[in-house]
Amino acid sequence: MQPSPERRLVILAEGKFGPHDGKTAMGVIRYGRDSVVAVLDSTKAGRSVREFLGPGPRFDIPFVATLDEALALPNRPDALLIGIAPTGGRLPQEWRDTILAAIRSGLDILSGLHTLLADDPEFAAAARQAGVRIVDFRRPPEREETATGRRHRAGSHTILTVGTDCAIGKMSVALELRAAALEAGLSGVFVATGQTGMMIEGWGVAVDRVISDFLNGTCEWLVEQAEALGDWIFVEGQGSLDHPAYSSVTLGLIHGTTPDAMVLVHKPGLEYHDFDHDPSVRFPIAPLPETIEIHERVAGLVRPSKVVAVALNTSLYPDEGEARRIIAETAALTGLPTDDPVRFGARYLFEEIRRAVEGRV
Amino acid sequence: MQPSPERRLVILAEGKFGPHDGKTAMGVIRYGRDSVVAVLDSTKAGRSVREFLGPGPRFDIPFVATLDEALALPNRPDALLIGIAPTGGRLPQEWRDTILAAIRSGLDILSGLHTLLADDPEFAAAARQAGVRIVDFRRPPEREETATGRRHRAGSHTILTVGTDCAIGKMSVALELRAAALEAGLSGVFVATGQTGMMIEGWGVAVDRVISDFLNGTCEWLVEQAEALGDWIFVEGQGSLDHPAYSSVTLGLIHGTTPDAMVLVHKPGLEYHDFDHDPSVRFPIAPLPETIEIHERVAGLVRPSKVVAVALNTSLYPDEGEARRIIAETAALTGLPTDDPVRFGARYLFEEIRRAVEGRV
Repeated sequence: MQPSPERRLVILAEGKFGPHDGKTAMGVIRYGRDSVVAVLDSTKAGRSVREFLGPGPRFDIPFVATLDEALALPNRPDALLIGIAPTGGRLPQEWRDTILAAIRSGLDILSGLHTLLADDPEFAAAARQAGVRIVDFRRPPEREETATGRRHRAGSHTILTVGTDCAIGKMSVALELRAAALEAGLSGVFVATGQTGMMIEGWGVAVDRVISDFLNGTCEWLVEQAEALGDWIFVEGQGSLDHPAYSSVTLGLIHGTTPDAMVLVHKPGLEYHDFDHDPSVRFPIAPLPETIEIHERVAGLVRPSKVVAVALNTSLYPDEGEARRIIAETAALTGLPTDDPVRFGARYLFEEIRRAVEGRV
Repeated sequence: MQPSPERRLVILAEGKFGPHDGKTAMGVIRYGRDSVVAVLDSTKAGRSVREFLGPGPRFDIPFVATLDEALALPNRPDALLIGIAPTGGRLPQEWRDTILAAIRSGLDILSGLHTLLADDPEFAAAARQAGVRIVDFRRPPEREETATGRRHRAGSHTILTVGTDCAIGKMSVALELRAAALEAGLSGVFVATGQTGMMIEGWGVAVDRVISDFLNGTCEWLVEQAEALGDWIFVEGQGSLDHPAYSSVTLGLIHGTTPDAMVLVHKPGLEYHDFDHDPSVRFPIAPLPETIEIHERVAGLVRPSKVVAVALNTSLYPDEGEARRIIAETAALTGLPTDDPVRFGARYLFEEIRRAVEGRV
């Protein structure tokens, strides 16, 4: 994928704006380069994104009930972004009309669904007629290669975020760490491995869409590409090693990127894996020391690696004092530098990671 | 995939007949239901498959140098089977002419390559004209689902073969164990998870071709289908948990099938992973006790499981006494029932597995 020009987005998130199903919407608003004009979610019409993401002019974005309302705004959007990541990635039937109306109103369509919208005959015909583009961020790359056991470029440092669950902030942590590396005057690179990261960064691969045989290999050449862009490479992790549905994608990232170090992302307060199936089948979140040890064991099957820091998502603890207490407890429990880099900044964690990784060389 | 009628095969294995690149050819000859008329490998023309697979009328198959020679045989073949599994699964350019000639001679084409031959315009047009079928065993299923954490049917037993490397016999061990279960009067099911297994069994999914997000889920519903067919379910494993290129497929099988027990397949004498890249980057085969422990740890991240037996591939030790000595040593090293079920029969291992699994219930 090539970087794209800046756009004015309306984000479709009908009924789903929030940290789980709407994590694409929230990630693009928080970290994206495009300006977001409105969020289409009739259940929140009249409210503002600031209620969810906090103060700051960046989050001063209205929720609207209809596409027409968004089109009537003074800074008319030029693209509709599908802002949800439902399980399995399929397009809800009821959104087809909205997407068609957007195409016919001259808006590009940006989608990260498994259902590739550009391959839909009705959407494709409408887009041709309207002269707009449909961009499917989950379209797999042409390059299909198994991993070769490639070694990293000398002088580069590959850091992978791993986690105790999905949808808890592995992408955000990687982005914050990259920002901290840039602030420190270093060449930092973010490797997007999911559709939201790609929407934000303009390149990368949604690795969960890749043919399984090429998963490790794709992660390997993504890092190779990143090594040509800079020295400090932060790879966005996916899923979790103990997730019943997504563990293989997680392992493909660990063994494909062969990271110099891993950062464990965890959301205190979460007891069970985010898993919207039979509620009688529940999978607990494992204790951190065990999780750290198994990640190091499993990574070491291909190349030795250590978890060198813990990044907490303390969003379930609005009280700052309580969040800081949990951070201190986690640091004591794991013996590792710990912080919430999204909430409190990533400088401390980055400097600790840097010390650990450079000390190892 | 539906079971297909019995065919008369000529197997294309040009220059590659052997246990690695030609493992599809050898597996289909050893275990398939179709009769094999000839193997097309000009480097071995005039010789017999018996030199490679041993005595027995089943292996009395000539190597031929050209397709025309195969077509001139008294039991003329009615299908050409692509008998190799090269890294990445692509079609060597030089085989196109042979495949086209086979199509034009009225032969069906059976292929397990990543390159889907039926989607090739030239092959497809020729097949239409000749009225023959092109069957791509690696075509992914329409069913695309993430895993749900499904529990097994009560009374069923799911056994997964895992291994210290790829291409060492995980499929053969699963087939031999199924045969032993059937001999014991039990309902045994073989779950094919690779193209060779599918060619042999007529159903299954080449799971390495599935979109990564659906890998665990596909393994889960394959077991669900198998549970409708019988009680003793033997799932063919893929790759190895420490293989730089294929580990994620291995983990998808472990976490997707959530086996009641695992059988570890190992080939004594092999020191490094079978990996045909940069020879300076070598990945050693890990010691068995470590390998057993890490498989149990990793499986247990989703559902507890034990390695209950070791199946050795002693083909590097032609002397039977030496093979039996290695088997005894391995049993002593691991504390587990150990045998070479392909060479010496699977009854012993199956009875030991049965005892372990039923004892656990």
